[in-house]
Amino acid sequence: MTSPTATLLISCPDRRGLVAKIANFIYANGGNIIHADQHTDFAAGLFLTRIEWQLDGFNLPREFIAPAFKAIAQPLSAKWELHFSDTIPRIAIWVSKQDHCLFDLIWRQRAKELTSEIPLIISNHPDLKVVAEKFNIDYHHIPITKDNKSEQEAKQLELLHQYKIDLVVLAKYMQVVSADFLAKFPQTINIHHSFLPAFVGANPYHRAFERGVKIIGATAHYATPDLDAGPIIEQDVVRVSHRDEVEDLIRKGKDLERVVLARAVRLHLQNRVLVYGNRTVVFE
Amino acid sequence: MTSPTATLLISCPDRRGLVAKIANFIYANGGNIIHADQHTDFAAGLFLTRIEWQLDGFNLPREFIAPAFKAIAQPLSAKWELHFSDTIPRIAIWVSKQDHCLFDLIWRQRAKELTSEIPLIISNHPDLKVVAEKFNIDYHHIPITKDNKSEQEAKQLELLHQYKIDLVVLAKYMQVVSADFLAKFPQTINIHHSFLPAFVGANPYHRAFERGVKIIGATAHYATPDLDAGPIIEQDVVRVSHRDEVEDLIRKGKDLERVVLARAVRLHLQNRVLVYGNRTVVFE
Amino acid sequence: MTSPTATLLISCPDRRGLVAKIANFIYANGGNIIHADQHTDFAAGLFLTRIEWQLDGFNLPREFIAPAFKAIAQPLSAKWELHFSDTIPRIAIWVSKQDHCLFDLIWRQRAKELTSEIPLIISNHPDLKVVAEKFNIDYHHIPITKDNKSEQEAKQLELLHQYKIDLVVLAKYMQVVSADFLAKFPQTINIHHSFLPAFVGANPYHRAFERGVKIIGATAHYATPDLDAGPIIEQDVVRVSHRDEVEDLIRKGKDLERVVLARAVRLHLQNRVLVYGNRTVVFE
Amino acid sequence: MTSPTATLLISCPDRRGLVAKIANFIYANGGNIIHADQHTDFAAGLFLTRIEWQLDGFNLPREFIAPAFKAIAQPLSAKWELHFSDTIPRIAIWVSKQDHCLFDLIWRQRAKELTSEIPLIISNHPDLKVVAEKFNIDYHHIPITKDNKSEQEAKQLELLHQYKIDLVVLAKYMQVVSADFLAKFPQTINIHHSFLPAFVGANPYHRAFERGVKIIGATAHYATPDLDAGPIIEQDVVRVSHRDEVEDLIRKGKDLERVVLARAVRLHLQNRVLVYGNRTVVFE
Repeated sequence: MTSPTATLLISCPDRRGLVAKIANFIYANGGNIIHADQHTDFAAGLFLTRIEWQLDGFNLPREFIAPAFKAIAQPLSAKWELHFSDTIPRIAIWVSKQDHCLFDLIWRQRAKELTSEIPLIISNHPDLKVVAEKFNIDYHHIPITKDNKSEQEAKQLELLHQYKIDLVVLAKYMQVVSADFLAKFPQTINIHHSFLPAFVGANPYHRAFERGVKIIGATAHYATPDLDAGPIIEQDVVRVSHRDEVEDLIRKGKDLERVVLARAVRLHLQNRVLVYGNRTVVFE
Repeated sequence: MTSPTATLLISCPDRRGLVAKIANFIYANGGNIIHADQHTDFAAGLFLTRIEWQLDGFNLPREFIAPAFKAIAQPLSAKWELHFSDTIPRIAIWVSKQDHCLFDLIWRQRAKELTSEIPLIISNHPDLKVVAEKFNIDYHHIPITKDNKSEQEAKQLELLHQYKIDLVVLAKYMQVVSADFLAKFPQTINIHHSFLPAFVGANPYHRAFERGVKIIGATAHYATPDLDAGPIIEQDVVRVSHRDEVEDLIRKGKDLERVVLARAVRLHLQNRVLVYGNRTVVFE
Repeated sequence: MTSPTATLLISCPDRRGLVAKIANFIYANGGNIIHADQHTDFAAGLFLTRIEWQLDGFNLPREFIAPAFKAIAQPLSAKWELHFSDTIPRIAIWVSKQDHCLFDLIWRQRAKELTSEIPLIISNHPDLKVVAEKFNIDYHHIPITKDNKSEQEAKQLELLHQYKIDLVVLAKYMQVVSADFLAKFPQTINIHHSFLPAFVGANPYHRAFERGVKIIGATAHYATPDLDAGPIIEQDVVRVSHRDEVEDLIRKGKDLERVVLARAVRLHLQNRVLVYGNRTVVFE
Repeated sequence: MTSPTATLLISCPDRRGLVAKIANFIYANGGNIIHADQHTDFAAGLFLTRIEWQLDGFNLPREFIAPAFKAIAQPLSAKWELHFSDTIPRIAIWVSKQDHCLFDLIWRQRAKELTSEIPLIISNHPDLKVVAEKFNIDYHHIPITKDNKSEQEAKQLELLHQYKIDLVVLAKYMQVVSADFLAKFPQTINIHHSFLPAFVGANPYHRAFERGVKIIGATAHYATPDLDAGPIIEQDVVRVSHRDEVEDLIRKGKDLERVVLARAVRLHLQNRVLVYGNRTVVFE
């Protein structure tokens, strides 16, 4: 699998012959498809597909693939993205004071589970600078108050631009990001420490404890202006009992948070997530 | 384990020596403890325990156990229940039109997973009478409208009295039971087809589909006037994906509903559930 | 989705253009694909796919589909099966004395979770005849001893022929079926009450208890002459603890067995399972 | 919960009055019990219990607790251990080349999930010295060959002695530890990368792939001379499919290995695990 690949993520109104049309485009140019998956949302009348093929032996030079596919996509009214597997995405991790997701993402990136670079950490607190230093990652402390939020977000955007960031991962950032920011930088994944839509908002573990639930969860989703309501990428849960105090829920939850966030980031980096409406299709 | 047992479920303000006091009561009368479990809610300052011992060889005749324990419990300000394992509880199953939980509960009772009798089924629809007949269980069709609710609930209570029912199981009854009814018959377990507190209220599977969750659940709880807010006994979940239509969620959910409800009923019948506030301690 | 569909299950040596070739065959005849999934086993050099399309509007009459596709498949050295969704498969359920899987399968067939007919139950014991009668299914008691096995298997095969059975489900049959039988009737699914390959053979729950495992499982697989070694279709697990006696493992296991077996049967009936070597691809 | 506690782990032949006897010992000395749990293995005729109480207000000075309890334990033929929560156990982590469990254990110790000190890492390879240095932990590289094993184990034992180690954690050490070593240092926990007893021995992920299982697992157990057969402390599993190559099983397995090992180590450190025969009772 070491040959670089191209991946098309496509959504368009459903009609006959879509699979054939797209497969023919790859085949006619000598491409070897290594992954193809599709989904039809019949209620929405929408066809969604992911198709990945090897670039070795593909007759179209990679700079011509997009223009050539555009000619096919336009009559289908398709939305589409084209990605190359040897383009390494650059991630900024945003944290507050908790380090479990940060450590985990860095470890996975080092262990080659996340094909990416992590050149930048942003935080509203100075606490995790020591972690950044341990792994030689730039750390920018940008404190946020009610009064300076839009000004500080401008600084954050400037840093994202400067570091050529492709994806922001809110790894327990514990701050609401503004609608304005998300309009300018929509590629943002958040981890929420509950099984959404249960316990939307603050202190979900405390509220789970009070409600006496027998299972807790975590949810990774794309950030949207409507807090905790973005398209869900991944969720997982763990069983708890009356023996678990709030601090036990928090501890058990940390294990959930880091695997759920890591899975979501990995799926995103592999271009396996297609968003439509407020939902995702995850082509695993 | 064929010897009959006695079980005490106790909750009282926490203080030193409670375990010793209760264990001594059993031991002094020659009892052989076969299960003892306890929990302390330090925030609430509450001690909760379940203790089960064999009646064979116990020196106190069973009719004297309650009076004798009362003398111990009163100075501790304890709430307590005493149960004997050879008293077979009688269950009324309430259904609407869906039969999966009904079938499952009957099968488990026949298979001796639920030590109980099921002499009565109540429904607001006539549909499941055929099931009742297959298993020789009395079926009462009591249609409910907005206008006749309190009158029909009186009939239901009369039936519960007549059949000497100890526990009502709302096995997809799909109707709200009134606060008035629950005040008169609090021993009522309900199955809600979501992972509470997500999707409180009607049509949880449709709403789970719309929200695009990756996991769905079911919750068994004691019924309370505040709908879907009663003390949770058991929950479980199952993974879903974009491939699952609403009808798939419903189908997968049925499997959850029946095991979650059956586990909750079994725990209740074995006197393993202690309710305090809006929470449960489940002594498994 | 009420229009009948055709489904092709194909496996062939991997080469370029397979997706396009197959999709073009459907498209050229005006078919509307509603599900297409594929998998490449790179180590084995094998391409496997499932493609399902609506027959309404398909230009080829259904009796010409197989001959037409044969012309495409032969040069690809493909193995393939063609199924129509309105052909209702006929199931024989084989049981011994335990009724949980039997009840469950019948209930699901009645509830339309399993598109099939169940005209025949075969057992080496008379015990479950009462269940068969409750649901108006023919019950044949064919006792097996060491000495009469091949003779009785001949009777079983005769019954499968007579009832036009497409699939045998060993629903806790607790008997080894001979290699000779399976050569004549390979469409046979078995449920084994362990998480294979752990606890191959007899009494898995007893051995799980002795080993002190913290999780038990169940496995549905196609029956092969090498006992408990057939291609696995589905598995699931449940957590246990030191509190669980052997009878608790058996009880918890029953819940696993029935859902795991039912899922496997459903996947098979929907033509979602492709066997190659000793493995399955499950196109969910 | 900040007051230090004492914990007794006791196993003895089952007889009447054991709970009362032990509870009275605590109560007579003014102890406040904060956790008490028990289990009876009726087949083995064995009573096992864990009891934890606060030392604040306990009348016996801690050095007299063991002698005083000895007088109670002897007539009961009880085996018992006494632990104090403010005695911090010292862990040696043994690794080979993989760093995921190592990182995870260190992170959890730093995050106060594992009340312990980790002063020593031992490895048969030099690779992970960099990790040890990042966290200021001594790293000893002790290469093992067939010929030098007993000599090198003597060095390892000397290091355990020198660093006053209480617990060895084989965190993917990938070497068999000799019976002789375990006789001298039995407090050793191992993580095996399969759902034991499935795939005992080498390369379990490769063999899981070949067998085509739908679920993989990991198992933490006390090390015994009979490889992979020691008393199981904790297990967990994750679902896989035909899409998962061997490297995916390895990747998914790593997440299992680290949580399963961490949970087992935590349970051990909290003195919640009682071994008898080849089984454990885990008092959670």
